Amino acid sequence: MITKLYSFSVQTKTRNEWLNITDKAAGAIASSGVKEGLCVLFTPHTTAAVTINENADPDVPRDAIMALNSISPDMPAFKHSEGNSDAHVKTALVGPSITIIVTEGRLLLGVWQGLWFTEFDGPRTRKFFVRVIGE
Amino acid sequence: MITKLYSFSVQTKTRNEWLNITDKAAGAIASSGVKEGLCVLFTPHTTAAVTINENADPDVPRDAIMALNSISPDMPAFKHSEGNSDAHVKTALVGPSITIIVTEGRLLLGVWQGLWFTEFDGPRTRKFFVRVIGE
Amino acid sequence: MITKLYSFSVQTKTRNEWLNITDKAAGAIASSGVKEGLCVLFTPHTTAAVTINENADPDVPRDAIMALNSISPDMPAFKHSEGNSDAHVKTALVGPSITIIVTEGRLLLGVWQGLWFTEFDGPRTRKFFVRVIGE
Repeated sequence: MITKLYSFSVQTKTRNEWLNITDKAAGAIASSGVKEGLCVLFTPHTTAAVTINENADPDVPRDAIMALNSISPDMPAFKHSEGNSDAHVKTALVGPSITIIVTEGRLLLGVWQGLWFTEFDGPRTRKFFVRVIGE
Repeated sequence: MITKLYSFSVQTKTRNEWLNITDKAAGAIASSGVKEGLCVLFTPHTTAAVTINENADPDVPRDAIMALNSISPDMPAFKHSEGNSDAHVKTALVGPSITIIVTEGRLLLGVWQGLWFTEFDGPRTRKFFVRVIGE
Repeated sequence: MITKLYSFSVQTKTRNEWLNITDKAAGAIASSGVKEGLCVLFTPHTTAAVTINENADPDVPRDAIMALNSISPDMPAFKHSEGNSDAHVKTALVGPSITIIVTEGRLLLGVWQGLWFTEFDGPRTRKFFVRVIGE
């Protein structure tokens, strides 16, 4: 069994932003030597998440950001003193962890799929981890 | 360590539909020979997802489809030219990947739980994968 | 390869409640002997979920509970006779499974992150499982 761990740093520029991290994760898989197994993408933050969605038209992440703002708006009744409870809720909805299949030494992604780091309370310097496990 | 990968095809019949795929995943586990480990359900699409929810009353997926339509409606300000941004948002909310525990050679599911392929932009021919890893 | 499975029982006290289960999962990792691998948190229920979010200010789970009630309210058109479709929808949004990285014999969590069992239809006696896999 092979288990490898990779750490990445990204810089977000606005409050809500989707950063394409497909190439970073693909590079981790390639260097891990794992041919058949799993890849876990994980962010250690509580106001950012990771997800998989369309990699082609930039209007998809744009529209998704707008929709998430509508689904989880700032609410007057929020009490958390940092004023970013909307971002914590988005993190609960999208999730800080996602698992992808590795096969033939590569991520098993659909033709339109890419991996995204989703910032909900930027701009900030952020981290994410890639765990590869398999053989 | 055993790692096995199974591919399945399903046909959806309407725009929003939940297909019960519990038996397909259970069959993959049985044929994998894995007794203790993990099972990852993954769909390679950007307008469909996979989830776990009640397996008994068909009104649960019916109500969930209605609620998701209300949570992620079509928005006039969407720019994505395919006109299915609501489906991309639902995919971000429900997620294209879910991990289930395998023990004693079977999926560790609660008595009411079943596995669902959730179509958000059908009807289409769709795929999903089952990765089993363990020993 | 090491694969271990741990079962926990929790008692919720209200309809919507977030229970901090970080210590329980950390204890499972410690006793598993796994140094490098993965940890999967899984709940076998259809009206409860598991997630990762802020571990510090109790106003974060409080605000998140309020926001989720707003995002997935009871709807007059729901047909499920148990009357808890809102809870099934929350489960689809937050998810009954989450995967965390294990490294150096510990959960790889950010400084503000904690693990939460999220009850959507309590009070009930609930279960969750921790699967540890690695070496």
